[in-house]
Amino acid sequence: MARARVHNFFVSLDGYSAGETITLDQPIGSAERLFSRFDGRFIHGVDVADEPITLDRALTSTWGQGVGAEIMGRGKFGPQTGAWTDEDWRGWWGDAPPFRTPVVVLTHHRRDPLHFDNGTSFHFLDATPEDALAYAKDLADGQDVRIGGGPSTVRQFLTADLIDFMHLVTVPITLGTGVSLWDGQAEVQDRFTIESATSASGLIHHFWNRTITG
Amino acid sequence: MARARVHNFFVSLDGYSAGETITLDQPIGSAERLFSRFDGRFIHGVDVADEPITLDRALTSTWGQGVGAEIMGRGKFGPQTGAWTDEDWRGWWGDAPPFRTPVVVLTHHRRDPLHFDNGTSFHFLDATPEDALAYAKDLADGQDVRIGGGPSTVRQFLTADLIDFMHLVTVPITLGTGVSLWDGQAEVQDRFTIESATSASGLIHHFWNRTITG
Repeated sequence: MARARVHNFFVSLDGYSAGETITLDQPIGSAERLFSRFDGRFIHGVDVADEPITLDRALTSTWGQGVGAEIMGRGKFGPQTGAWTDEDWRGWWGDAPPFRTPVVVLTHHRRDPLHFDNGTSFHFLDATPEDALAYAKDLADGQDVRIGGGPSTVRQFLTADLIDFMHLVTVPITLGTGVSLWDGQAEVQDRFTIESATSASGLIHHFWNRTITG
Repeated sequence: MARARVHNFFVSLDGYSAGETITLDQPIGSAERLFSRFDGRFIHGVDVADEPITLDRALTSTWGQGVGAEIMGRGKFGPQTGAWTDEDWRGWWGDAPPFRTPVVVLTHHRRDPLHFDNGTSFHFLDATPEDALAYAKDLADGQDVRIGGGPSTVRQFLTADLIDFMHLVTVPITLGTGVSLWDGQAEVQDRFTIESATSASGLIHHFWNRTITG
C-alpha cells in the first residue's frame, strides 16, 4: 500500500519551517537560517553525500527511497503568485532538479507540464489534497508519494489525515516569525507513534508513523 | 574516491558478532540472538521495509546505497570448510541473494564464479585484504565496497587500516562466547571520528568515519 511521506522537514524550536515572504533571493524566506547553521543538504543519499557519513546524513538519505512522486506547494516551485506570466520559470533547480520523479505542483493556475532529462517532471494541478494524492499515486506507479512542503502544504495534508509518515527535524534555533508547521494542528500527535533521536550536531530527528486513521 | 564501508554490523555488549561454530542450521552460530530479539533485517532499504519506518530501519537502509561490490569471508557464504566438495551450494540466500552486486568471497580454495539473475555474482578469491579490496573496487566500478563480515573478515581489514566507515550496532545483550569484533584491535578508535545514537528499541548505532590514515 503506497504511503504519503514527509522527509527531512526542518522545524525551528518555535515551530516555523519557512519565512513569510518568498523571493527569488530567499527561496524559503527569512527561514534560511534553518539550513545555514546545519548541514541542510536534505535531498542527497549516502551515495552522493560527501564524507563523513553522519547520523544526520544517513537519515537524510531516506528522502528518495521508494518514492515515486512528490507533491509540493506552488511556493516551493517558485516565488511567483497569481497567473503564470513567466513560463520561462522552470523551478529553482536548473536543468537537473533533484527529484527524478514526477512532481505535482499545487496551484490554482493552469500550466502545461514540464519535463527534464533526468526523470523529473512538473505537473500543475488545482485539486483538493485527496484528489492531488490520488493523482500523485497514479504517477508514482505503486511507490510512495512524498509530501514535499512547504509547511502550509504539509498542514493541509495533515488536516485531511492523509500523512502516513513524517521525518521531522527540530533545528535548535528560534526564528520568531514565519510559516508554522503546527498552526491548527492541536492533537495531531494522537494519530501517530513517535520516536525521536538526538544527533551530535544538535539536530533532533523525529519519526512519526501513523497508527490511527480517522 | 571509493570507500570501504561496514554496515549494520551487530555487536553484543561483550563484543561478539558471531558464534564460534557455523552450521547449516545456525548461519551465525550461537550468536543468532543478536538478531532474534531485535529487528535484524539489516539488508533492506526503506523502500522494501514494512511499516513503520523507525530510526533503526532508516539507518539500516544505508546498507546498499552507493555500494557496487561486497567482500565477505567464506563463513558468511556457507558452513563448509576446506576444498569445495559440494558445488551445488550457492550460498544461504536461494535464487535471489540480496546483494545485487558482485560479491568477493575470500577463500583459499578456488571455485568458478556464480551468477544470479538479480545482479548478484560470487567471485572466489585467495588474496590479502589489500589485493581483495583492489579487486572488489574494480568490480564496483567507481562505487563503494562494503566489507560484509563476518567479524574475522572485518578485523582483518581493520588491522590493515583499510576501513573508511563503519556503522556498528550495539545490541544490549551478552553472548558469553563467540567471535569478537575487537580481538587485537586495541586503539583502533584513534583512527576514527565516532558518533553514537540510541534508538527507542534499545539498540545503539555508531558511525565511525576514518579521520587518520596510517
